[in-house]
Amino acid sequence: MIKRIGKHTLELTNRPRVLGFGSVVGKKEGEGPVKEWFDRIFSDTTMGGETWEKAEAKLQEEAFSIALKKSGLEKENINYIFAGDLLNQCVSSSYGLRDFEIPFLGQYGACSTMAQTTAMAAVFCESGASDAAAAVTSSHFCSAERQFRYPLQYGGQRTPTAQWTVTGSGSLILGGFENGSFRFGDSLADKGDINLKKQIGIEHLCVGKIVDMGIKDANNMGAAMAGAAADTIYRFLEDTGTTCDDYDYIVTGDLGRVGSDLMYELLMKEGISIEGRHKDCGLMIFDREIQDVHAGGSGCGCSGSVLCSYFLKNMHKRVFNNILFAATGALMSPTIVQQGESIPGIAHIVHFKNCTD
Amino acid sequence: MIKRIGKHTLELTNRPRVLGFGSVVGKKEGEGPVKEWFDRIFSDTTMGGETWEKAEAKLQEEAFSIALKKSGLEKENINYIFAGDLLNQCVSSSYGLRDFEIPFLGQYGACSTMAQTTAMAAVFCESGASDAAAAVTSSHFCSAERQFRYPLQYGGQRTPTAQWTVTGSGSLILGGFENGSFRFGDSLADKGDINLKKQIGIEHLCVGKIVDMGIKDANNMGAAMAGAAADTIYRFLEDTGTTCDDYDYIVTGDLGRVGSDLMYELLMKEGISIEGRHKDCGLMIFDREIQDVHAGGSGCGCSGSVLCSYFLKNMHKRVFNNILFAATGALMSPTIVQQGESIPGIAHIVHFKNCTD
Repeated sequence: MIKRIGKHTLELTNRPRVLGFGSVVGKKEGEGPVKEWFDRIFSDTTMGGETWEKAEAKLQEEAFSIALKKSGLEKENINYIFAGDLLNQCVSSSYGLRDFEIPFLGQYGACSTMAQTTAMAAVFCESGASDAAAAVTSSHFCSAERQFRYPLQYGGQRTPTAQWTVTGSGSLILGGFENGSFRFGDSLADKGDINLKKQIGIEHLCVGKIVDMGIKDANNMGAAMAGAAADTIYRFLEDTGTTCDDYDYIVTGDLGRVGSDLMYELLMKEGISIEGRHKDCGLMIFDREIQDVHAGGSGCGCSGSVLCSYFLKNMHKRVFNNILFAATGALMSPTIVQQGESIPGIAHIVHFKNCTD
Repeated sequence: MIKRIGKHTLELTNRPRVLGFGSVVGKKEGEGPVKEWFDRIFSDTTMGGETWEKAEAKLQEEAFSIALKKSGLEKENINYIFAGDLLNQCVSSSYGLRDFEIPFLGQYGACSTMAQTTAMAAVFCESGASDAAAAVTSSHFCSAERQFRYPLQYGGQRTPTAQWTVTGSGSLILGGFENGSFRFGDSLADKGDINLKKQIGIEHLCVGKIVDMGIKDANNMGAAMAGAAADTIYRFLEDTGTTCDDYDYIVTGDLGRVGSDLMYELLMKEGISIEGRHKDCGLMIFDREIQDVHAGGSGCGCSGSVLCSYFLKNMHKRVFNNILFAATGALMSPTIVQQGESIPGIAHIVHFKNCTD
């Protein structure tokens, strides 16, 4: 059952479960601090394809295939796939997932897409609209650079506030759960460890509002998104009557160094000290000292790949039991920023919790 | 309650209701056959703004404002807004709806977006995730031409199969309904005629799969989408055990002349004769004889504005009581088509029905 609590938060009383998850990344990400947690590391930026756009589509295909395999389900058992990415018209999603023939609902939340697709899949599973649903997202450094900034060959200089778009994809599959069993029957999910599939549930969701801090510098996305992150986290804690210390970690997507510090400051004004409980996927995925990524990693694939590797694997190990995943996005296009508009941000929260039922 | 019927269709047993709807269009659309049904016709392509992109954002702001006003609700009563458009990174939606401060979930289904946003709002209202939710979409001829085709100043020649992107926006607001009353309390919706607000319900949804017909001609979107339309309509009729004659009309989004004829042919192969029950918004919104639009209108704003004017107003008048709205989209980008890829299509169905409870 879906209960609305407070003003903006949803409680999913049956907690749809994470049946499987997959993460794939590129070479640079595969050399960073999270390297041991990814399912697959591609050494070639085109993943054996012809273009970077097709390579990014391939990342989604691969991440979803891994998640599907781990879930023990067949593609016919997945009722809906929610997917999105940063490319114009979200083509990595539509081309990467075209051949699976699963009812498809494209999502656009910029770098918040992993949280958004997971939230949608969770509502569909909890409401009975689906027995199982998938969430997928991706980004690719090369396709993003030429679309949002400069041709790679140009060798443009990067500002200290700039972030490095992650080449990677994350995918997870949720199953609707009722009275101790999966709605599609336990037998289907019974390849492998059924208890592992019942373990990680989604208990709360909080969909963000568009928050515009007036930032006009497209090389400072962290700052543009910090206000949205602070706003959604603040509203979620208020709605649930919890504090940062009630969670193992509050995980943002790709605020990077600049955005994270700004978010600390904004939440401090509300009396919330988050720093000790905060992790940012953009700060985790690269070693900023030696990998030359300036303010950190970014892109839908950043939070997507780190959630679907390090965090969910550590939940399975019960190292973490209670994670707020708050991916953030900057809802701009190069065209409208060139027209002098500021960059609005958004952040959505998905609360993952280890279950005992 | 949400019931899954057949393989792919959802039945919403309480039928969330259409509380209000609004449509705005540009000058050319305001001179076409549907002109008397629109809420507002702008005579200037920039809607008093500085650029076409900002003008398109303004279209969404305006259509949503009209729908909200008709619903009798305040913006604080709308729990979620589902919106999308054709522009890169869906900026008409994020910039047009930024100031309303309503939790925002960006959707991307190309020209199928009006059906997709409505379907998402319907699931959220039926499941209890929201008391009220909005669906919005738009397109703009000038912003679409320069993004997808040529600069307007170039005066590029158009092929006979090409369609004319509609400058327009449609928005509707749904309310969750239970035991004869709106979940947020009848009093809130009680400005104006409460019976009108309880009249039009959404009974079924069918989310489409990605269908690729192998079309590589970006000037023949109708053909690229015809297969998806036929597929979703076929599956819906099979799941519900109904025939075309059970509906007043089966309304496609923007197949145009070429796509409509192809869809008839594809459905005929399955023994389904749809032609006598079919309307296409792309064929309705312009007079092809005198308005020089070649194969018809297109764009998210095409089906969005025609649904939220002609069709829903005629349902209120009980001229129509039972409409299948099957908007179609082509999930391509100029970049990936230039890379030699074919154009995948998608179509989602929303079944609107006049209710007596």
